[in-house]
Amino acid sequence: MNSPVTIALDAMSGDSGAGVVVPAALKVLSRHNSVRLLLVGDTARIESELARHSGRVAEGRLELRHASQVVAMDEPPGSALRGKKDSSMRVALNLVKSGEADACVCAGNTGALMATARYVLKTLPGIDRPAICTSIPAIGGHTHMLDLGANLECDAEHLFQFAVMGSILASAVDSIAAPRVGLLNIGAEDIKGSESIKAAGQLLERSDLNYIGFVEGNQIYSGEVDVVVCDGFVGNVSLKTSEGVAKMIAHYLREEFRSSLPKKLVGLLATPVLNAFKQRIDPRRYNGASLLGLQGIAVKSHGGADALAFANAVDIALLEVAKRVPSMIDSHLENLLTEATS
Amino acid sequence: MNSPVTIALDAMSGDSGAGVVVPAALKVLSRHNSVRLLLVGDTARIESELARHSGRVAEGRLELRHASQVVAMDEPPGSALRGKKDSSMRVALNLVKSGEADACVCAGNTGALMATARYVLKTLPGIDRPAICTSIPAIGGHTHMLDLGANLECDAEHLFQFAVMGSILASAVDSIAAPRVGLLNIGAEDIKGSESIKAAGQLLERSDLNYIGFVEGNQIYSGEVDVVVCDGFVGNVSLKTSEGVAKMIAHYLREEFRSSLPKKLVGLLATPVLNAFKQRIDPRRYNGASLLGLQGIAVKSHGGADALAFANAVDIALLEVAKRVPSMIDSHLENLLTEATS
Repeated sequence: MNSPVTIALDAMSGDSGAGVVVPAALKVLSRHNSVRLLLVGDTARIESELARHSGRVAEGRLELRHASQVVAMDEPPGSALRGKKDSSMRVALNLVKSGEADACVCAGNTGALMATARYVLKTLPGIDRPAICTSIPAIGGHTHMLDLGANLECDAEHLFQFAVMGSILASAVDSIAAPRVGLLNIGAEDIKGSESIKAAGQLLERSDLNYIGFVEGNQIYSGEVDVVVCDGFVGNVSLKTSEGVAKMIAHYLREEFRSSLPKKLVGLLATPVLNAFKQRIDPRRYNGASLLGLQGIAVKSHGGADALAFANAVDIALLEVAKRVPSMIDSHLENLLTEATS
Repeated sequence: MNSPVTIALDAMSGDSGAGVVVPAALKVLSRHNSVRLLLVGDTARIESELARHSGRVAEGRLELRHASQVVAMDEPPGSALRGKKDSSMRVALNLVKSGEADACVCAGNTGALMATARYVLKTLPGIDRPAICTSIPAIGGHTHMLDLGANLECDAEHLFQFAVMGSILASAVDSIAAPRVGLLNIGAEDIKGSESIKAAGQLLERSDLNYIGFVEGNQIYSGEVDVVVCDGFVGNVSLKTSEGVAKMIAHYLREEFRSSLPKKLVGLLATPVLNAFKQRIDPRRYNGASLLGLQGIAVKSHGGADALAFANAVDIALLEVAKRVPSMIDSHLENLLTEATS
């Protein structure tokens, strides 16, 4: 009999802490019969939240682990790392390190999570810098994009490593044999872009990845590419720009449907269609960013995630456990190294 | 009596050349009574296009200027600059340089246009690098964003100059006394971002601009800021990402309204509302990017612009002429220099 998969959840971080993580945990347990969850944080606080949902707690598949501190959402990574050794974030990562948990999910401060994860779990051999990767909706499917903010300036080798990690994640999560990998640039021609992007393109040309060349910002959403690689500054700006555009469009669409009585009536009729449409690009469905390149699995949930969104981030962690993403990355890098030295 | 404003139009560049520029020119002449246009390019080609619109040509306000060459859309800037001295683009810029035209509008290759404009018109004293600025829709109005691709890597001083130029353009075009200027970054905290962005923030804090601090990608569209400053790589990716998101949303919205017969009927009823909505964020309304920092006015139209969109780009050139944008930038920079040395 297989032992159940165990996921540690930081139950204190994020905008709503246990108020979101506890109902999300119950949702996960009802979705997956063989999953065990460890809720990490102030046990009194977690128990009082659990009491509000009494009767729905799964038998023996939910345990509490105490942590006396919480990393604040705006706390500098260094201060979290040095001063919060008993934070819910750190204890959750320790559980992954010790093998008690197979992965952890945390809605806390991204910078602190990345710094702590790197310190506790360590990077894989051959990875200089871990990266943050998330999937975003695209025409006909979705696209994985990395880095999203962990590394502001990247050289060619870093971008190459991101491409390897993103390709393995996409392949594992989406079950595609050879994900199409593109380098984000400002033109498709070889002469465009910074030196590090051009050099990364040359490394990728020679690799065994399904590298399709430079892609432009619009192609992230066109369904032409499965993995988009960029530095963390550009990735972060691009992702937040996308949120901004979507919000503006929703704003004007709503306003137009409210601008007169006849339009309001049409709006009422169109409500089910508009809701179905909204669901297709619902950011909650895409919640959960993977910290890739570590010797362990850590998934970052959005700080403002609700229970449904947080549960989706846990599902991503479960997929990465099932597909053994860190060891897949590790063996791919080892093969590259063997080829290079043979 | 004021002499009429004269705008030179490159009638050969862009995806459709004279096929778009000639009808756009006629649209501009009918909109503005005192504007004079110079159509630059192969006069035979332009005349045959004009013949298709006979009877609508304005009396004496439309003149042709011959140019024997055309810069190709994918031609490297250096080759255009050295090898196409009689291109429609170059001749249009020469007309601005000689004073025969007050501004020029061109739908050609951005890199070649910027390189040629810089060579022909020269930069303003105190400007190291011209930048490309466009306005994009935002909640409650629009936002000016620069640089959009002329300068891939920028130091603090370049970003500062972009902020000055963008602020003056926004002030002139939108008649706002003190446009809110933000630096695009990946967080609002002072510790975030590259060294050049942080240093530019310090320069802006000390300036007389209405600097509101770092802004994130989503704020480009939120209506909180009038001018967003970034390097050309980030600006280009951000703008193209926005196009991609908008296209994906339109795709899913259309698909949802076609997914069943009842939904199709609702879609039919909703058509006028959806059309009104589309018009509000119609990219054609936002066509026309300003090349700022030059001793003259040059506006870049989108290569794929139609006549309506091209005419909007001409309107932007007219506004910049009326508000004397280059000399406003020049005197602002001169004041800064005087203050710094006094």
